[in-house]
Amino acid sequence: MENFRQFVGFLVGAAFLGTLSVVFVLVWVFHWREGLAWDHGLREFNWHPVLSTVGFIFMNGFGLIIYRLPWTWNISKPLMKYIHAGLNIVIFVLMVISLVAVFDFHNAKKIPNMYSLHSWVGLAAVIIHALQIVLGLCIFLMPFTPMFIKTFYMSIHIFTGLLVFGMSITAAEMGITEKLIFSLRSGSNNTLPYSQSPPEAILVNTLGIFILLFGGCILWIVKQPEWKRPSEHVKENIGNEERSILNKTTEISAETSNERVHERGAGLTHLNLEDVGQRSTF
Amino acid sequence: MENFRQFVGFLVGAAFLGTLSVVFVLVWVFHWREGLAWDHGLREFNWHPVLSTVGFIFMNGFGLIIYRLPWTWNISKPLMKYIHAGLNIVIFVLMVISLVAVFDFHNAKKIPNMYSLHSWVGLAAVIIHALQIVLGLCIFLMPFTPMFIKTFYMSIHIFTGLLVFGMSITAAEMGITEKLIFSLRSGSNNTLPYSQSPPEAILVNTLGIFILLFGGCILWIVKQPEWKRPSEHVKENIGNEERSILNKTTEISAETSNERVHERGAGLTHLNLEDVGQRSTF
Repeated sequence: MENFRQFVGFLVGAAFLGTLSVVFVLVWVFHWREGLAWDHGLREFNWHPVLSTVGFIFMNGFGLIIYRLPWTWNISKPLMKYIHAGLNIVIFVLMVISLVAVFDFHNAKKIPNMYSLHSWVGLAAVIIHALQIVLGLCIFLMPFTPMFIKTFYMSIHIFTGLLVFGMSITAAEMGITEKLIFSLRSGSNNTLPYSQSPPEAILVNTLGIFILLFGGCILWIVKQPEWKRPSEHVKENIGNEERSILNKTTEISAETSNERVHERGAGLTHLNLEDVGQRSTF
Repeated sequence: MENFRQFVGFLVGAAFLGTLSVVFVLVWVFHWREGLAWDHGLREFNWHPVLSTVGFIFMNGFGLIIYRLPWTWNISKPLMKYIHAGLNIVIFVLMVISLVAVFDFHNAKKIPNMYSLHSWVGLAAVIIHALQIVLGLCIFLMPFTPMFIKTFYMSIHIFTGLLVFGMSITAAEMGITEKLIFSLRSGSNNTLPYSQSPPEAILVNTLGIFILLFGGCILWIVKQPEWKRPSEHVKENIGNEERSILNKTTEISAETSNERVHERGAGLTHLNLEDVGQRSTF
């Protein structure tokens, strides 16, 4: 793998920031917000930020880059697809529990549901995530799906996955904003209001920054084409003469880093349709 | 240009959603929030959402895709760089005025500055945007900058530009959340609270959705490599024999869409370093 050290650096960065985000949301909930329970009260609500951070941020981020981990490249592509699908189904289940916790809490406290921009963006992201799972299972894991449909849908699937990840980060940042404003009101529980920056506000704002930086690390990894899982279907059907000419044209520009781009282009010539689909974006 | 109709579709979509966002923020400010003024009061604060939507969302989005507009491809690359830089400087000036409006309002009302996650993310985005301008001017527009530095910095510049755009959208969504909670409190000005979804809340939530969809259109355009500005430096130095072999290898896979990938790869072989840098990501 090219630039392997840089890849490991960003991967460790993402793992570190993702883990810190989960730790910070747990510290928030247990140290300042009375912990977790399933009691239709504030402690039930607390499942919402915890499960959303674990599922829709941490696991979702790693779901996007799972094919890029070189340690998985000796696992067959179909098995990797099942692992990717399974991970996303687990994320969906966590998000359903996370949403039930909020609706339960709102209903018990007679607070209206679905009025805020946070709720609109967050629910839309969960619904689109579910559609991605259904379409992904039907299109990529059913053997009878025509290849041209797989190819057509692949770039949409990848883009939509990134969009859902971006929406989940945006929804998390809005959720943090809402919760800090509502729970840190003047005089409530003898705490300072949000505008006076009590320790809880600093910790949770920092959680918001960690989530953003985690997203940045994941997007940097997604953006590098040289970190894609290598194709398993490169056909060895270039003759020796052609290979020699390709080498010659490579030498012409050997003084520049274009060499790599050329080799990549030549290699891609012999992929099958599915590979093109899978490699067409990011 | 490949898929020109799709490109125009997303471009028109972005222009429509971006314009709607600006119209909606103006309707919000003039119909519900007493309009604009420079009076250290709420009407001065209103410059903040207006200028942020115009500058950091609408103009910033089009700044990201300005090189991709095929109508600009007969304009020289250096002039395009000046236009890109100029546009981003205008955005920075608008954001400084936008920030001064908020600080003025907060100071007049004795509200602390910089306590919210919105303010942390928003100010960080403006600072990084300013650094992008300074580094971009020094590295891409100074003739004495070594080419390897330009190449190295290009992918960082593009990624950071996208990151700032994502941060500006996230900050806008948090800003909307904050402002609706603060201005739609129970009983204030005889309006319903945010949780009762008065018309203002519906309009401004919808503004938030338009901003997200605008971001989605811009990112889709940025993500398609076939919509990049064509290189001006393709050197015509492939001999006839080599050209014939390249054509032959293309024919082998003519039945697949890989053909296009191959031609792209072969063309890229002969770009200069700057081109590689400019074409290395997204």
